[in-house]
This record gives sequence, structure tokens and C-alpha cells, in this order.
Amino acid sequence: MAMKLYGAVGSTATLRVKACLAEKEIDYEFVTINMSNKEHKTPEFLSRNPFGQVPALEDGDLKLFESRAITKYLALTYPENGINLMMHDKKTMAVVGVWIEVESQKFELIGSKLAWELAYKPMFGLTTDDAVVEENEKKLEQVLDVYESRLSESKYLGGDVFTLADLHHLPALKFLFGTKVKRLFDARSHVSAWAADIQYRPAWVKATTA
Amino acid sequence: MAMKLYGAVGSTATLRVKACLAEKEIDYEFVTINMSNKEHKTPEFLSRNPFGQVPALEDGDLKLFESRAITKYLALTYPENGINLMMHDKKTMAVVGVWIEVESQKFELIGSKLAWELAYKPMFGLTTDDAVVEENEKKLEQVLDVYESRLSESKYLGGDVFTLADLHHLPALKFLFGTKVKRLFDARSHVSAWAADIQYRPAWVKATTA
Repeated sequence: MAMKLYGAVGSTATLRVKACLAEKEIDYEFVTINMSNKEHKTPEFLSRNPFGQVPALEDGDLKLFESRAITKYLALTYPENGINLMMHDKKTMAVVGVWIEVESQKFELIGSKLAWELAYKPMFGLTTDDAVVEENEKKLEQVLDVYESRLSESKYLGGDVFTLADLHHLPALKFLFGTKVKRLFDARSHVSAWAADIQYRPAWVKATTA
Repeated sequence: MAMKLYGAVGSTATLRVKACLAEKEIDYEFVTINMSNKEHKTPEFLSRNPFGQVPALEDGDLKLFESRAITKYLALTYPENGINLMMHDKKTMAVVGVWIEVESQKFELIGSKLAWELAYKPMFGLTTDDAVVEENEKKLEQVLDVYESRLSESKYLGGDVFTLADLHHLPALKFLFGTKVKRLFDARSHVSAWAADIQYRPAWVKATTA
């Protein structure tokens, strides 16, 4: 039975899992959850994710939610499919683990606030809060300065190969690169090269167009 | 050579790693970083964590930061020490992984805001923002409702045994249980029993008193 991914168009968390499934070359059925109809708050969907958020994954009798838990499950359970996104020696995995947490704890909150203000709000006809943008651009610059230093030492965040630590950034980059925030990435040569490299990956192109 | 943990008194992230080291019965040297002297912003400490935050771990030639990355590294690398905090069969690990992400993505932000307003601000002579408390108490109640349902099905968040998914909550509980927020846990019988159970663990008592 094929895996089922329950998600929504425009959901960065859904895209994160789609990117992982594409890299792992895993076939799956995509089930669209219509959030404007509150389908994510129905008892049926709440049994998949009690917080009522997309995405959710069904793999046989296993039901999972939280995008980063799903990607780690896929990387751990299907190491032979597609490319290896996490399962290296313990020291390398430890370093990959650090940068997975950096995305989750440092990058995500800032990136999602900027994406909301500059990409989503204009789509919904809402007014961008310039003060929030300014504050979070400053925070993002501090994070990207650390990334620039890290990426001057290794091609990818976790080391010499592309891993989940890089992949988890892709959905935010997709939305931020359509806004003025892109200039903060462009201003840092290693960050800029890394962002281009990972966004040109065939699996990501497939995940965002399929 | 013994592991070295660089951390600070009163840091919840430091306590998270101390709890894990105690459960794993791993001996280590604790190196206090004096944050009032800005020791976490010195070049020496920035070489351990480029974001200038505690904790950081040194295990031989491996330098790690981000508390949740460190605990996962310890659980993965030293499965035979103390109790097994993560390394089960893949399906169990997947479910544990979901609840590790729930703590990180849902509980932490709310818990840390409430701890800041109600536990830390009074210590520093600052004024608590009642509106922030009210807003985050409402959000915490929604999260704890999901926990109550989950903990009515299994003794711990990840299943029948204590894992990192539970352990990661301990530092926030320590601070929140000294505030009026404790009543939100007390009002939910399964959450209340779980919170008591994990806070009475000998390793946690050791981590918070040693």
C-alpha cells in the first residue's frame, strides 16, 4: 500500500515532507486537505494530527505528524531509497543533528515571520507590518552570518553532503526568495551559493511542481 | 577524557542536557559559563557555539551545541549507558520522534514565554506582562488538552516508557511549577500524574541538585 501524505497547497511544512519524499524517491498518494473548509479540524483529520495542522503521513498502520519528525522517520526507515539524508557515522550524524536543530530553533521562527509578512500577507490582501519585517531582518542577518562562516568550512550545513539539515530550509527559501529578503542571502557568498545549490536540486524542483 | 558540559545556572537548555547525562549515568565535568560577564560571547565560547548560547558539549574531539541535538547524540551514541532514551524499534522511534517535535514546536515557545514572565522576570525585578501571560496560558491549555488525550492512551508521550520526548519538558516544568501555571497541569489528571512521575525521577533530582 502506497504511503499517503495529507497536506495543503502553500503549506511550508507540507513542502518539507514532499521534498524529503522526492529525495528518497518514494511513491506516495497526496491527499489534499482543504483548509478553507476547515477540513484540518474535522475528527477524521484530528485523528491523524491532534493539533489540527498539516501535514500528516500514513505509512501502513503508522500515522505520523510534525514535518521534521516525518522527514527523520523517512531518512531512518528508508536509508537505501534515493539519497542518504541522515544515516552516517555517529559523529557526522551528531553534527547534522546540531544543524537540524539550528534550523528548527533559530531559522524557522524568523523565516516564517518574514514569509508571513512579505509573501503570505500580500497574497491575502493584508498589510505588511514594516516594524516586524525590520526586526526579523536584523535577526536573520545574525543567523546568516553564522551560516556564512559555517558554509565557508563545508559545502553543506551538516558537512560535505546534502542532508536533512539543508533540506529543512527549502520551503522557507522558496517563499523568502520571492521577497526583498533575498538580498540578505545574496550579500553572503557562501550562503548564496548554498541556497542556489539546494534550490536547484531535481528533487526539490519535482516537489514544488508535481 | 571526561565529557565537558559548558553551561549556566538557571539555563533551561543546560538543565535539559544535565537531565540526560544523569539518566545516562555519564560522568562529566561541568564548566560554568558566567553570562553576567558575557563569557558566552568570548571567541573561546563562540568556537563552541557560534550563536553564543549555552549549553555546549565536548566529547573527545567532538564539539556540539543545541540542547536537543546533544541529548539525541547521547541517546544514540551511548545506548547501553543508564536507561535507553530513544533507541527502540523504528516504529516506536518514529512516534517518540513526533512527540520530541511536539515539545520543540508546540510546548517550548509557550512554556518559555510563561516561565520568563512568571518565574524569571520577578527574580530580576521586572514587571510581568499580564496580557502575555493570559494569551500563553490559553495556548498552553490547548496543548495540554492534546497531552491529556495522549497520556490517557500511554503512560508517557512516546509510549509505555520514559524517553527524550518526556525528558525535554523537565526544565520548563521545574520553573512553571513554581508559578500559578501549575494549576493548568493539576486540572488534567493524566497530565498531572505524568508531570509528577517524571519530576520525581532520581536522575532529575540529581540533575537539579548536583
